[in-house]
Amino acid sequence: MSQSIPGYTFGTTAVARSPLSLAEFELMKKSVLFGDDDIRYLRMSHEVLQDQVEPILDVWYGFVGANPHLLASFSHKASGEPLGPYLQVVRMRFGQWILDTANAEYGQAWLDYQHEIGLRHDRARKNRTDDAPSTDIVPFRYLVPLIFPITFTLKPFLAKKGHPAEDVEKMHAAWVKSVLLQVTLWSQPYVKEGRF
Amino acid sequence: MSQSIPGYTFGTTAVARSPLSLAEFELMKKSVLFGDDDIRYLRMSHEVLQDQVEPILDVWYGFVGANPHLLASFSHKASGEPLGPYLQVVRMRFGQWILDTANAEYGQAWLDYQHEIGLRHDRARKNRTDDAPSTDIVPFRYLVPLIFPITFTLKPFLAKKGHPAEDVEKMHAAWVKSVLLQVTLWSQPYVKEGRF
Repeated sequence: MSQSIPGYTFGTTAVARSPLSLAEFELMKKSVLFGDDDIRYLRMSHEVLQDQVEPILDVWYGFVGANPHLLASFSHKASGEPLGPYLQVVRMRFGQWILDTANAEYGQAWLDYQHEIGLRHDRARKNRTDDAPSTDIVPFRYLVPLIFPITFTLKPFLAKKGHPAEDVEKMHAAWVKSVLLQVTLWSQPYVKEGRF
Repeated sequence: MSQSIPGYTFGTTAVARSPLSLAEFELMKKSVLFGDDDIRYLRMSHEVLQDQVEPILDVWYGFVGANPHLLASFSHKASGEPLGPYLQVVRMRFGQWILDTANAEYGQAWLDYQHEIGLRHDRARKNRTDDAPSTDIVPFRYLVPLIFPITFTLKPFLAKKGHPAEDVEKMHAAWVKSVLLQVTLWSQPYVKEGRF
């Protein structure tokens, strides 16, 4: 699947090295209480979510579409009109992101790709992947707040395959931790030198 | 109570204006799905938590104390020894922060104080309030991840007064949203010009 997604460069030489080492990432994992159990529950969620990617994206895109201040990041910089093709190609990568998060192979290639995702949100490289005439940056102020709607709306989908409530809770918690870690990694290009 | 806490300047002229307007903060609230119900559940949590502040702080300080990379922010810059008096005075403000968060009066004075809290974590003003000989900054990379342990460990305390499970869930969700918003506000001094 991933081969056919435009701009999806996970694991390729097009992705630069993360400025963060795996040892530094380990301390971030400790800070969010992320352990082997979370890996296990994320992978459980992979089986649960893999055939629900499109309905999940419908919910997330519905939320973005209902909020002009969020839709702006997918709209034409001058006219403010939503950019259909840009929304569509990002949606394909967003779907793959669900599977990559649940796959939970958080090694060097994954760490490097998180940095790439951050650069693509920041002024450094927004729009370039898709040559989109959109706004210059996804403002930092929305990145961390969006962790709630993204993970909260996932919960009903995690529950849809009949797992015990305790497993659903643990899959959800593992997702929250993973997204907290990822948004932190994506923030690195936004943060001043020596502050990260 | 708050009168007797050293360095606690909420609502005083010692606090500068937030660079963010209340209208801009409204859009952040929309991004995290924060509404009037969350205000109501936070205030419910105030009644639940107000006599549990010390045991909550015991849990949080236990976590920080068990993680050298976190304890470093409360330790002597040169010797690496934990600074007892610094830990103690921050603890008093941390306890007041629990009550202020649950009080949920998120107007201009509160917004201004969030900016002050951010400055005190950042290189801009760390240690100055207490004249502490500690490290120069709380690294950005730990701020967002810490949202999980802070809110997750709160849950049993929220359940301790016999509220229905649904109310406990909603108090917890309101806390998660509030802390996501606050950590975003605290991040502003860390973020590059024009990126926030």
